[in-house]
Parts: sequence; structure tokens; C-alpha cells
Amino acid sequence: MSANFRSDNETPVADAIMAAILGANHGTAWAYADDDWSKKLDQAFSDLFRTEATVIPVSTGTAANSIALATVTPPWGSVFCHSGAHIYGDECGAPEFYGNGLRLVPVNGEHGKVRPDALKKAVRANEGHGVHSYKPSALSLTQATEGGTVYSIDEVRALCDSAHAIGMKTHMDGARFGNAIASLRCHPAEVTVEAGIDMLSFGASKNGCMAAEALVIFNQPQWRETAERLRKRSGHLLSKMRYVSAQLLAYVENDLWLEMARHANGQAAKFAEAIDSHAEASLEYPVDANEVFVKWTKEGFDHLMSQDIQFQLWPGRDDLARFVFGHSTSDEEVGLLLGSLHN
Amino acid sequence: MSANFRSDNETPVADAIMAAILGANHGTAWAYADDDWSKKLDQAFSDLFRTEATVIPVSTGTAANSIALATVTPPWGSVFCHSGAHIYGDECGAPEFYGNGLRLVPVNGEHGKVRPDALKKAVRANEGHGVHSYKPSALSLTQATEGGTVYSIDEVRALCDSAHAIGMKTHMDGARFGNAIASLRCHPAEVTVEAGIDMLSFGASKNGCMAAEALVIFNQPQWRETAERLRKRSGHLLSKMRYVSAQLLAYVENDLWLEMARHANGQAAKFAEAIDSHAEASLEYPVDANEVFVKWTKEGFDHLMSQDIQFQLWPGRDDLARFVFGHSTSDEEVGLLLGSLHN
Amino acid sequence: MSANFRSDNETPVADAIMAAILGANHGTAWAYADDDWSKKLDQAFSDLFRTEATVIPVSTGTAANSIALATVTPPWGSVFCHSGAHIYGDECGAPEFYGNGLRLVPVNGEHGKVRPDALKKAVRANEGHGVHSYKPSALSLTQATEGGTVYSIDEVRALCDSAHAIGMKTHMDGARFGNAIASLRCHPAEVTVEAGIDMLSFGASKNGCMAAEALVIFNQPQWRETAERLRKRSGHLLSKMRYVSAQLLAYVENDLWLEMARHANGQAAKFAEAIDSHAEASLEYPVDANEVFVKWTKEGFDHLMSQDIQFQLWPGRDDLARFVFGHSTSDEEVGLLLGSLHN
Amino acid sequence: MSANFRSDNETPVADAIMAAILGANHGTAWAYADDDWSKKLDQAFSDLFRTEATVIPVSTGTAANSIALATVTPPWGSVFCHSGAHIYGDECGAPEFYGNGLRLVPVNGEHGKVRPDALKKAVRANEGHGVHSYKPSALSLTQATEGGTVYSIDEVRALCDSAHAIGMKTHMDGARFGNAIASLRCHPAEVTVEAGIDMLSFGASKNGCMAAEALVIFNQPQWRETAERLRKRSGHLLSKMRYVSAQLLAYVENDLWLEMARHANGQAAKFAEAIDSHAEASLEYPVDANEVFVKWTKEGFDHLMSQDIQFQLWPGRDDLARFVFGHSTSDEEVGLLLGSLHN
Repeated sequence: MSANFRSDNETPVADAIMAAILGANHGTAWAYADDDWSKKLDQAFSDLFRTEATVIPVSTGTAANSIALATVTPPWGSVFCHSGAHIYGDECGAPEFYGNGLRLVPVNGEHGKVRPDALKKAVRANEGHGVHSYKPSALSLTQATEGGTVYSIDEVRALCDSAHAIGMKTHMDGARFGNAIASLRCHPAEVTVEAGIDMLSFGASKNGCMAAEALVIFNQPQWRETAERLRKRSGHLLSKMRYVSAQLLAYVENDLWLEMARHANGQAAKFAEAIDSHAEASLEYPVDANEVFVKWTKEGFDHLMSQDIQFQLWPGRDDLARFVFGHSTSDEEVGLLLGSLHN
Repeated sequence: MSANFRSDNETPVADAIMAAILGANHGTAWAYADDDWSKKLDQAFSDLFRTEATVIPVSTGTAANSIALATVTPPWGSVFCHSGAHIYGDECGAPEFYGNGLRLVPVNGEHGKVRPDALKKAVRANEGHGVHSYKPSALSLTQATEGGTVYSIDEVRALCDSAHAIGMKTHMDGARFGNAIASLRCHPAEVTVEAGIDMLSFGASKNGCMAAEALVIFNQPQWRETAERLRKRSGHLLSKMRYVSAQLLAYVENDLWLEMARHANGQAAKFAEAIDSHAEASLEYPVDANEVFVKWTKEGFDHLMSQDIQFQLWPGRDDLARFVFGHSTSDEEVGLLLGSLHN
Repeated sequence: MSANFRSDNETPVADAIMAAILGANHGTAWAYADDDWSKKLDQAFSDLFRTEATVIPVSTGTAANSIALATVTPPWGSVFCHSGAHIYGDECGAPEFYGNGLRLVPVNGEHGKVRPDALKKAVRANEGHGVHSYKPSALSLTQATEGGTVYSIDEVRALCDSAHAIGMKTHMDGARFGNAIASLRCHPAEVTVEAGIDMLSFGASKNGCMAAEALVIFNQPQWRETAERLRKRSGHLLSKMRYVSAQLLAYVENDLWLEMARHANGQAAKFAEAIDSHAEASLEYPVDANEVFVKWTKEGFDHLMSQDIQFQLWPGRDDLARFVFGHSTSDEEVGLLLGSLHN
Repeated sequence: MSANFRSDNETPVADAIMAAILGANHGTAWAYADDDWSKKLDQAFSDLFRTEATVIPVSTGTAANSIALATVTPPWGSVFCHSGAHIYGDECGAPEFYGNGLRLVPVNGEHGKVRPDALKKAVRANEGHGVHSYKPSALSLTQATEGGTVYSIDEVRALCDSAHAIGMKTHMDGARFGNAIASLRCHPAEVTVEAGIDMLSFGASKNGCMAAEALVIFNQPQWRETAERLRKRSGHLLSKMRYVSAQLLAYVENDLWLEMARHANGQAAKFAEAIDSHAEASLEYPVDANEVFVKWTKEGFDHLMSQDIQFQLWPGRDDLARFVFGHSTSDEEVGLLLGSLHN
């Protein structure tokens, strides 16, 4: 037996999502997001977030993030994000590409979080002098963070207030948004629109979908045209969008998304607990969601690998590794992992 | 009963393709096109085209076309295409976006085809004077064309020779490539790599897939890095690429793609024949593949609509309409259409 | 003796302009267009055009044109211009570069002029269908045209009305604006802002300046920020802008610009008259300004060249040549040219 | 009397440079850098740097820097520079614009210098993982630095070696290159091409010219086409380039550039010495060239201002100010400054 904790990107599609895809596969349907499924998204997400939502369905988080940022940032605008953010380190400059050379300003911060003081300092250092400098235009927060931690509602609100106070717009990269909400046990609106978030990349692919993400714009319907133009122009307006939208509708129906995220978080928590009480290994960050960063010896990690356990050694480090738990991570897999810790 | 001939983009996913998707849905798989399905694509397409092929799977034809063109065209390069080409009129400038302001030069031509003389004239008019002008860099042909016609092998070869002679690269937009091959009854290599095509957007979504296109690069493996960078940077490197690649593998296996295309072409041919012998209506272009352009009176088209028959009145025209036949167009639907012609 | 009629780009700087440069060369001055000369431009051009003008001084016409078009055109917007326009054929895609892949749509028309019918037809052919197509965003007219003709006030008004009616903005490339006004003998406002022009690239380099052009924005002060950002970002905000602005101020003072343009036009008229009455040679276009296009035999042109007369054989043609007359074209040079016509 | 130490950008044009401009102002000359002056640049700079040089004259340092970086960096490439570099903080994203979304990675370092260890660390943190990350492509050093310090030959060589070892190209922003060479008292080739620099933005505007910079490419003539395309496309190919090239030729003739830089450095040295022995004020950085950063009290700076002495309080600081000395800074101005220090 083997077990794979490399990434939730590697998990299969959940049965209920696949059923929704199959359910959409009858007869013809209008192309390019004019189908019945896609047309229901605005209402479904307005309900979910108890506010007016404009939804732009796409296939990847990179597309959702880049469209979002380019919608509110001019080419001479800067976007502040954590130095470990996916948009900064893992998208090969997609935001810069969509935004025609906008600039991402990386902000350091413990546990994968942007802190208000660090944000203020970074803005001050980069706001510059008129036309000679980039104009601070947006703040992007990742929820759950790249470190597997989760911003509290108050943390998000403080950062959004700070951003709005100087005219910046706010974006949340919710590639693991389900895991964050499962962790916070709050209403999804509370940590987004009600805390000051203007746009959310609502991730679904990592948590049981095939290729489905929703860019959700809160209370700014006038941003739709730019976002839709960017989607088309980047090749993300699928002709058969019904299959993406059907995934999204099934995903948010009856709290399926939260149920899957709770499962993933729960599996992660078991492992975190084991590491926390381990003699040698330790947790690098608090474990709020479905990712566990473990500090250990090379020998320790080598032993796990020898047991057919797959995970990601952190780039450039042999004493740090990431374990990700998904909607499909079974008790057997977690059992194998826990059992291998002490042999 | 109703029948929909608006576009093959509106057809559902073929059962065999859906089965392949389901077949890929077991366990974890490496993300970002490092999965087993994606890794088989180069070989599968090298076999299909009996030459060395580099395959870049993506979700949309716009992405395939734009990556292809931006891979071989500098920002100051121009791409020649038919004035009715999808890349010119239906992609909202995606090639210009991916190519950082490259220029598409539209070339007029009967029946949706670029003709060698028109190409030469257009190149001459646009090659300009050194650094002041765009540099002719690529030729893009659509096969089958937007007019529903198909370039012969000789036509493709003549155009490619002409392009290569002045250092241009050649691209084929094969959104309906299956329909073209079903029409030509030739080996797919004959009208592409062997006729001088350097890159092919091998379309599958219109012909039975869900969202799957393959950019196929012939004998130029060194273009892979640029193409892959462009795919990532535009957000088209799906984390769960296995589901796209599984579609493509099933699509080309056992000539499924040709079988579906032959069906579509056959249904179109029945309608074309009926129009050809119709008292009032007439064919606007020769019908080589699965699209039929009909010239008729407003009254004629109104009557069809009143019979619950859906098709596309051509923008700005009330005497021209397009009927598209797909892999799923049933005999009943064609029967309804034919029966409505004379009532 | 020799005489050069290749281009007004090749003429030297007029004495009065050089005097203004020298006059600005005392002591220090604020950098980056905060100097006293630059600050006077808005008022000087508001006076000249008897309306509120926002002036962006730059060094080249390409910069002025590109900043203008990118200020009012989104990346998914199209700009309509004559197929012979400088922005289309001679700027290597600068507008597309500044505008992040906006599209120029070339419109054919006799004598270098866009005609209302041709514009309407081009717009209709390119306005397309929603998000799939470029959005018609701007019209750019060249005054005097590339054919050496001049749009009448009524012609400009009709085209601007047509553009404004569908939400397009209007730009005039006035690389030879002085020659046009000298020809029209109207107030400069009449054929620009009062006829519906929103932005003017007010050219000066061809007509006696060293490197000075003014982008003049009429009654739209809110466009300043974008235009200034584009200028900075493209590297056109000179640190020592005073020397550009001093040129512009001297150029428009006491009608110097018109005086120089009148001289150039007058010299051209002498040549045009001679051609008009020539036995073999003939005028290709009406001669309204300072350019004369001559149709003649290869032998005729060869003979002129043998007399040390320089001019431009039109690319790809040996029976057409362009002769340009500048502010510095002397009577002796014109005499040599005229004298060579009949020998 | 007053004295202005705000920036060398505010100084007038030196007499010898103005004489060269006047000297070029006779008769017609080929446009677009095909004139006799421009054609001499390659040879003049090949002589100056005792190696094969390709010279691209432009009007601004921003253009020179941006063309240089975009010539060697793909859109998915990153450029490493000091966090205080002009390209990072003062060009409003021009490099990102020219480079279609390339990324600048800021590297901290004392005294305005990139240090080898910091460079290595930054590269390691940003080299990432294949297609997901930017590719380290270029290093840009500023000489003299933004802190008024100068890299030694050995420092430059170590950094270039480090960059070249991983395939990066090297660029020097020499906006104050003359001041650096005057300080180093070395041959200009020693700290550039012979130390491993591939491209130099050879600044002249700050040191006595009007608007003239030379992008100098060493031993890579094949980069010319891209650089020239970028120059044209960005609107920096002046029609009357002769006036820029004439400045550059005069600037490097008979060591005029070094003579002017020595004067500026000498004036700065007097002030540095005075600050160094001052009771309250102190030098923030070593003074190697023509810029002096002074740490002092608000009262101290207020007093200077009350004496009509102009300088730049550092953005966001009231205890730090910059004083810049130029080719035209007179002994009287320095005298006023020194005299005001102790009153």
C-alpha cells in the first residue's frame, strides 16, 4: 500500500461532482457560458454570500486570480501579497501578463500571513512619488494561506480596512477557501465580503472538482465587462462551459464543499496531532486547515519515503516537508502515515 | 420536437469520451501534466502524424491558437490569416494578447480560403521597410475553413511553400480538423506536416470532447519551452490535466475522431443536397465538411424557426444562415430539418 | 548643387527654434516637465485652440500617437484608420504595444482619406458579437494625409460625428498639421476640437523643430493621468523636458509654425504646377499641402536622380515617387528640381 | 543668491554639447538614425571600450534600461537589481512594460550595492520550480549607485561571474557612469565589458547633455535587431536622431564626459568633507561620486532651506537629504552651501 500527500491537486474528482458533470451531458446547450447552468451561478453565489455576486467561471485558479487582479489594477498599479503567495511564486507571472506589467510586491510575514504593519511598511516603501512609481492598487490575501494557516475574520477586516483606506481594492485567493471556512466555522460571507473583500477566487478544483473555479465579484457589477473581456482574451471562455458551471453548482449545493473540506481538515488534524507529540519532528506552522508543514531530520523523511509515503520536500530544504490532505484522503492512508512515524 | 444546428460547440460530450474521463478518475495522479495520460500524448500524436510531435494539451482552441502563434511570432511580427478566420474575428484579440501586440493581417478570399496570390499581395503590402514595419512571421490557415470548405493537400502545400520561402512559419487552426480529414479521406499527416504545416491546433471539443485541444508542434521540439511557458502564464496548465489528456487519447484511439466527424459530415451532406435541389434556397459555399451556409429569403428562415429549428442567422444578414452538424446530430433532427424545407 | 526632397524629417532645425533652445539653457530647472516652460503649455495650447487643452509634450510622433490611442482604447478595443496611415504601416506596432494588443483596422480610401461609407462598412465588419470581438473604440485621422491631401472641416466633422455616434473617440495624427492648416486657411480649432476631434498629435519636428510633439487633449482633463502614466512608462518623460517645451512654445508663438508650413506648401505648389502641366509626368493625388506624389516613367525619375535630386521612389513601385518640401526648402533647390524636369 | 542641489537632472546643457548640436544643424540629413553622426557611434564606442560595441542612441535612461533588459529577458524572466535601483522605484514599470511582464526582483544591500551573497540568496528564493516560476535572466547593477557609492572593478566582476554562472545576462545602469569612472580612475572598459558587463546604459543627460543616452551592447551584435525593434516600437527612434548622436559624439570626445564628471565629483567632495567634520550632520553613505546623502536634524535642513539652498529631503524622512552636484555646479554655489552649514 502507498499513500500520497503531495498535493490536493492530485486528488480525483468526487463522485457527486462527476455525477453533476454526467447530469449536464444531455442534448445541446448554448455555448460560451450562455447555458442554463452558467446562468444560475450569479444567483447561487449571491445566496451563498448573502450579497450581490457576479460570477466568472473559469478552469484554473491562475486564471481566476489573474483576471481578478487585472480587473482592478492598471498596468502601472501594484498588488501587495505575501512573499509565499501562489500568485507571486507559482504562476510564472500570469498576473503580470494579464495586467500588462502590473507589479506584485511581496510582503514577508510569519506563518504565511500578511500582517498589517508589514503591509503598511511595504506600501510606504513602494508608493513612491507620483508618476515615477507604481500606484498601490490592490491587496491579495490567500485563504487558507500557503503555510496552511487561516486568517481570522478580524485579521482580514483589519487588512482590508487598511487597503481601502488608501484606495486599494482587495482580493482573496481562495484556492483552499473551503478548508478555511471549515476551519473558521463561520459563514463564508463573514470572512470575505463582510470583512471587506471585493473579489474572491473561489477554488474548487483542489477540493473535489475537475477543473472549476469561480471568480466572485462582490457588489461591483460594473467590473463584469472587464473581467469577461479578460476571460475571453486569455482563452478561458470555454465553449462548453456548462460542464464547469455544473461542477460549481453541485459543489456549493447542500454544503458539499464544506463537507469535503471538513474531511480533509480532519485528516490533517490527526497527523498534526501526531507530529505535535512526536519526539523529533515538529510543526513548522500552526495547522489550521489541510496542510501540515513538518520539520524533521533527513533520516525521518527518508524513512517515510521508504514506506511508500509521498509528500513534498520543500524546495531547497531537506529538513522541511509539506503534507496535504484532500477530500479523498482515506483513513487507511492516514493510518499508514501515522504508523510510519514511529518505526 | 426541436433541432439545434447553431453550432457544434453546443453538442454534448460523446459517450466514449465521457467513459475515458471516468476511467481516469481513480486515485491520485501527478498534477500539472506530469500524469500518465499527459505523458502519452507526444507518442500518440507522433504515431498519428507519423513524425516527431510535441503536444501541448489545453482546454480551448483560442488557447491553442494563441500559444502557437505567440511561440513563433515576435511582438513586431505579423500573422497572415483569412479575414473570416476565428483568430481574427472571434477571439477578442487573444493572439495579440499572447503575442504582446503582434499583428494579424486579414486576407480576403472566396469560400473562406486564403489564396496564394492574395497572400503574396498581402505580404508585399505589409512587409514594409525594415524596423518601421511588422515583420511577416507566420501564416495561419483554418481547416476546415470558417466557410465550411476544406483546403486540398495541394492548396496547403502551395501556401506553406510560399510562406516558408520568406521565412514565415505555418500554423493550422484545426478546430474542425476531424471534419476536414473525414472530407479529404487522406492521412492526417498529408495535409499538415507533410504539406508544410509547422503547428496544428488539433481541435476536439467541437467534435465530441468536453474541453480538450492539442497544440501539436511538428519536428520543432525546441519550441516546447516557449509554448509551455505561455500555457502556464496564461493559466492553461490545469492542475488536473489528466482529464484533458484522457479525452485526447480516447479521441484519437481507433479513429473515434474520424468516425464522429464522418457522421457530422454525412448529416451535413444530406442537408446540402436538399438545399442544392431546392427551388429558392441555395448554397453560399461548397459544402466540404459539417457546416452548411444557406442563402434564402427571410420568410424561408422564419418558417424554419417556427418549426423549432435553431440555426444562426449570419451577423448583419437576413438572407444568409449557418447550419452546423455535429457528432450527435441525429437522423430525426435532420429529418425534421429536411421536412421543414418544403412546407 | 544637389537638392533633397526625400522627407521633411530630414530638414534641419529652424533658427528661431534653435534660439528658443538656447534661450532655455540658463541655470537649473525642475526636471520631468515641472519646469517653467512645460507648465506654460496647457495655457498656450488652450489659447491656440480656444478651448481647454491638456498638453503632453513628447519627442516623437509615434509616442504622441501611441499614448493618445492607448489612453482611450482598452486592450480589446479597435482603432480605425486609413490603410496608409503612419500608425498602421510605419510605427512597427507602437500603438499595439502601448495599447497592450489593441487592434488597428485599416480602411481603404482614395487620396489617403477615410471616407464615411468606408468607415461605416469597416465598423460593421469588425464590431462583431459581444465579448468575442474587438470593440470599436477610436478613429484616427491623419491631417495632412499620407497622400499629401487635406481633410476639409466638413469631412472631419462627418467622420467624427459618425465615430461619436457609436461611442468611439477621435484622434488626429497631425504630424503635418501645420501644413494642413496653412492649406485650409482656417482656425486650427475649426478642423479639430470644433469638428469633433478629441485628441491631436500636434506635430512640430517635421516643420522646423528638433524633436518636439505635443499630444493635445481637448476638454477631457481626466485623461491626463493615463496619458502621463503611459508617457513615463514608455520612457518619454524627459528629465530635461524644458528643451522640448521651449521648442513648442516658440513654434506656436507669432504663428511661426504656420509661416514655416506656408513656405513648405508654397514650394510644393510650384512643383505641383510644373508636374500638372508636364507632358509625361502626372500628379497621383491632389496636392493640398507639402507632399507631391508623381507618376512618371523610370527614365524620368532616373534623370532626376542623375541631377543630384533626391526623393523617394515608392516601395515596390518604379513609376511613383514622393517629393516632400520643408520649411527649409530653398528657391534654389526648387529651381534645380523644376529645371531638371524638362532636360 | 541661491543654489540648487536637487538633482543633476536639473542642470543645463554644457556649452560644448550645445555647440555640437549647433554644428549638426546644417542642411538635410538622413532620418531615423541613418545620418552621418549616428553611423559613427559604433566606432566611437568600440574605441572607447576597446571592444566591439553596438550602440543604440535614445533620449532617456529609462528607454535605454528598458530596451536593454527586454532584449535579454523573456516575459517569464526575472531581473535582479538593488531595491533602491532606478529601474525598480523610479520608472513606473517601464522595464515590465517593455518586457511584457518580466519581473524585477529587488535585492537589499548596504550603500546601494547588491552584494554577492544577497544576490545568491535572492536567486535561490526566486528560481523556483520549472515552468511555475520566473526564470532568472538578468542582473542589473547601477554605477554609480543610487546611494552615491561606486562598485569596484572586483565587485562588478564577482557579481557578473555569479550571474553568468547560471546563465543570466548582465546590465549596468550607468546614468552616472561618468561620475563612477571619474571616481574609479580606471579605464571605462575595466569596470564594464572586461568585468563581465554585457550591456551598458551609458548616461549623458545628467552630465551635460540635453537628452542623450547610449545603450551600448558589448560583443553581441546579434542583439541589435531586437534592441532596434524595441526602440522603434516604443517610439524612441527619433526622426532627427542626428541631434542626439551629435551630443554623444561630443560627449565622449577628448574626455569631455570625464572632465565634467570630475568637476561634479570634486564639488561633492568638498561638501562631503565639510559634513564629515560637522558636529551634528553626518554622511549616510560613503561619498564616491557626485551625490551626498546627509543625516541631520530637521532644524539643520530647515536652516539650509532658509538660505535659499535647494536639495531633496528623502521621501518619508525628515532627517535625511540628498545633495547632488553637477557639471555646472559653481564654486559660488558650493561656497554658499558650505557657508550655510555653520550658521
